[in-house]
Amino acid sequence: MTKLGLKFDLIAFDADDTLWHNETLYAAAQGKLRELLSRYADGETVDQWLYQKEMSNLQYYGYGIKSFTLSMIEAAVELTEGKIQAAEILQIIAFAKEMLTSEVQLVEHAAETVCELAKSYELMMITKGDLLDQQSKLSRSGLGDCFRYVEVVSQKTQRTYEALLAKYRIEPQRFLMVGNSLKSDILPVLALGGYAVYVPYHITWAHETIDSQHVERDRYHELEHLGQLLPLIEQLKGST
Amino acid sequence: MTKLGLKFDLIAFDADDTLWHNETLYAAAQGKLRELLSRYADGETVDQWLYQKEMSNLQYYGYGIKSFTLSMIEAAVELTEGKIQAAEILQIIAFAKEMLTSEVQLVEHAAETVCELAKSYELMMITKGDLLDQQSKLSRSGLGDCFRYVEVVSQKTQRTYEALLAKYRIEPQRFLMVGNSLKSDILPVLALGGYAVYVPYHITWAHETIDSQHVERDRYHELEHLGQLLPLIEQLKGST
Repeated sequence: MTKLGLKFDLIAFDADDTLWHNETLYAAAQGKLRELLSRYADGETVDQWLYQKEMSNLQYYGYGIKSFTLSMIEAAVELTEGKIQAAEILQIIAFAKEMLTSEVQLVEHAAETVCELAKSYELMMITKGDLLDQQSKLSRSGLGDCFRYVEVVSQKTQRTYEALLAKYRIEPQRFLMVGNSLKSDILPVLALGGYAVYVPYHITWAHETIDSQHVERDRYHELEHLGQLLPLIEQLKGST
Repeated sequence: MTKLGLKFDLIAFDADDTLWHNETLYAAAQGKLRELLSRYADGETVDQWLYQKEMSNLQYYGYGIKSFTLSMIEAAVELTEGKIQAAEILQIIAFAKEMLTSEVQLVEHAAETVCELAKSYELMMITKGDLLDQQSKLSRSGLGDCFRYVEVVSQKTQRTYEALLAKYRIEPQRFLMVGNSLKSDILPVLALGGYAVYVPYHITWAHETIDSQHVERDRYHELEHLGQLLPLIEQLKGST
């Protein structure tokens, strides 16, 4: 399916904090949890309990808002030593529903970049999290028609990308991934022989942080914002 | 990708209550919830609150154990009018973790049927629920190597199947779906022009029940158990 004159057969985007704001949503919910629990513990203690709980629950729940909510509830019960009231737990569930239905705030330049690229390339969204929530966000974002494929995965390792490319019969060197996580979007794709564009987001969840100094610079580009993506792809087209 | 001598290019299986027991797991957890709440309400009341809560939450959470757990917590707080103790809520979370890690109990004849079919056909698992949980169950089931593809979807409508078949470039008349839900596995596939094999399970979640009398009988077969699937496929091979 190599297309004449195009350098890539498939361009894929991470979604959370690449196309739309996401970490801000979690940070806001976490702020509300701190407030809710302020008579039991200080903010830093709440943050620490929650992060520990999220990490130990990852093996059971995976990523996404439902997992985050179950971890918030568990952390809240444990750190208050069972003193939290049932009505307060309902409030935590209300935070979740608010997150799940909140307006999707697109990242700057996301809409025009994606819609313009979709005219020439097949686009895929590759994201972790809850299937239904990600589909719902894509639909609410207004970008649904620009993506030919959506893949929600439980993790983003080299094997994940390898399996996806095999499934769609795409050569790694004809594949470009765009994302805000070095660990999940960039390194595994470079390791496979694909191209990767890193567009950092202003907040990174601690679990996704990685030391960037060892990123190989071949087939790798870093941009300040998505508005620079189209010119970069044009430029890559000219290279061999 | 039509294969000489084979009637189908792709055979897909539903997973929960088709390949492995699942509804029994939910029923057991629900039994524990009834027991946990027995000093607040009788069993039937608990069942009714939970089902109502699951239905109203489906739009937010979709399917799966995490959704079920959030609904159990919400139902428990509301029906006890906030009297439930935080420690009891931790018990509900413990039910969830037990469900997520319990041994996968294969349905009778599932293992030999799937492994035998995998020698000749490309097999796919198509299932609703949580991505990570379904992948984990497939891995724990020992059937992982028999399935070439796994698709976890948020719902199983005609459009869902249409999109999947388009993605894999499979003609509906070369596709066979095997499952225990008329609503999710059988009717949408028949409507598309595919083949469907219905293998009823002894419990059906109320949300999945449907009146079977209107199922069209063309390209449709009903079996008592999976042990009858290989002979049926052999027999279909002979038909035009």
